[in-house]
Amino acid sequence: MVAHDGETLFLVRQPREPVNDPALLELPAGKLDEEGEDALDTAKRELAEEIGKGARTWRKLTSFYTSPGFADEECHIYLATDLFDQSAEAIEDERIEIVEVPLSDLDHVIQECRDSKTLVGLLWLRAFLPSR
Amino acid sequence: MVAHDGETLFLVRQPREPVNDPALLELPAGKLDEEGEDALDTAKRELAEEIGKGARTWRKLTSFYTSPGFADEECHIYLATDLFDQSAEAIEDERIEIVEVPLSDLDHVIQECRDSKTLVGLLWLRAFLPSR
Repeated sequence: MVAHDGETLFLVRQPREPVNDPALLELPAGKLDEEGEDALDTAKRELAEEIGKGARTWRKLTSFYTSPGFADEECHIYLATDLFDQSAEAIEDERIEIVEVPLSDLDHVIQECRDSKTLVGLLWLRAFLPSR
Repeated sequence: MVAHDGETLFLVRQPREPVNDPALLELPAGKLDEEGEDALDTAKRELAEEIGKGARTWRKLTSFYTSPGFADEECHIYLATDLFDQSAEAIEDERIEIVEVPLSDLDHVIQECRDSKTLVGLLWLRAFLPSR
């Protein structure tokens, strides 16, 4: 999800062996791998586990296929705002590092971004939510 | 690549079995599968083969990984403008259909789009190239 509090954007860095990157910058995200959990519930769980935040406002931005030529992976992007502290037991990979970025640096982050879902989410914010 | 002539955006539809879509809307694109061919040469070849156009102006927009959690696929996005007719022998899949969209419909196309590289390219156009 794209999570921000009006001033700060919350991203993560984590190692991504398939592309040989030790610290790829990405949106907080997770797989729909818990039984009966829908995409929004997954996003809420991951925001708490990875960033230690909850959000009072959730808005669906878009859904898309990451690599429709050879994979069926689908990605759902939400905007999470009106954040509050909400920690959760992180059963996640401990190699995830939280990265706080000023929203004023959004264009720079987009220029440097190398992950498809993150580009879609941040470009959507840049294109359609100028009052961020 | 994002290819437009100032009024019309040139996209394609093609069947994508992995996601069970008989006509997924995408940017014209191709794999770097010809020996010694770089990403820009691939884009030029695909624009001619899929759309029947050449472009006098090419601009690199970005590169990114489509699914860095499990695949090493990298995607390079170019902007192709100042178009002219230039057909090429299409050794491509004949199931590709050209879709011409007015640039004034860009926001609607983005809302409907389900392909990651296409969303990145069109959102980049929407966010950073307002004088399109």
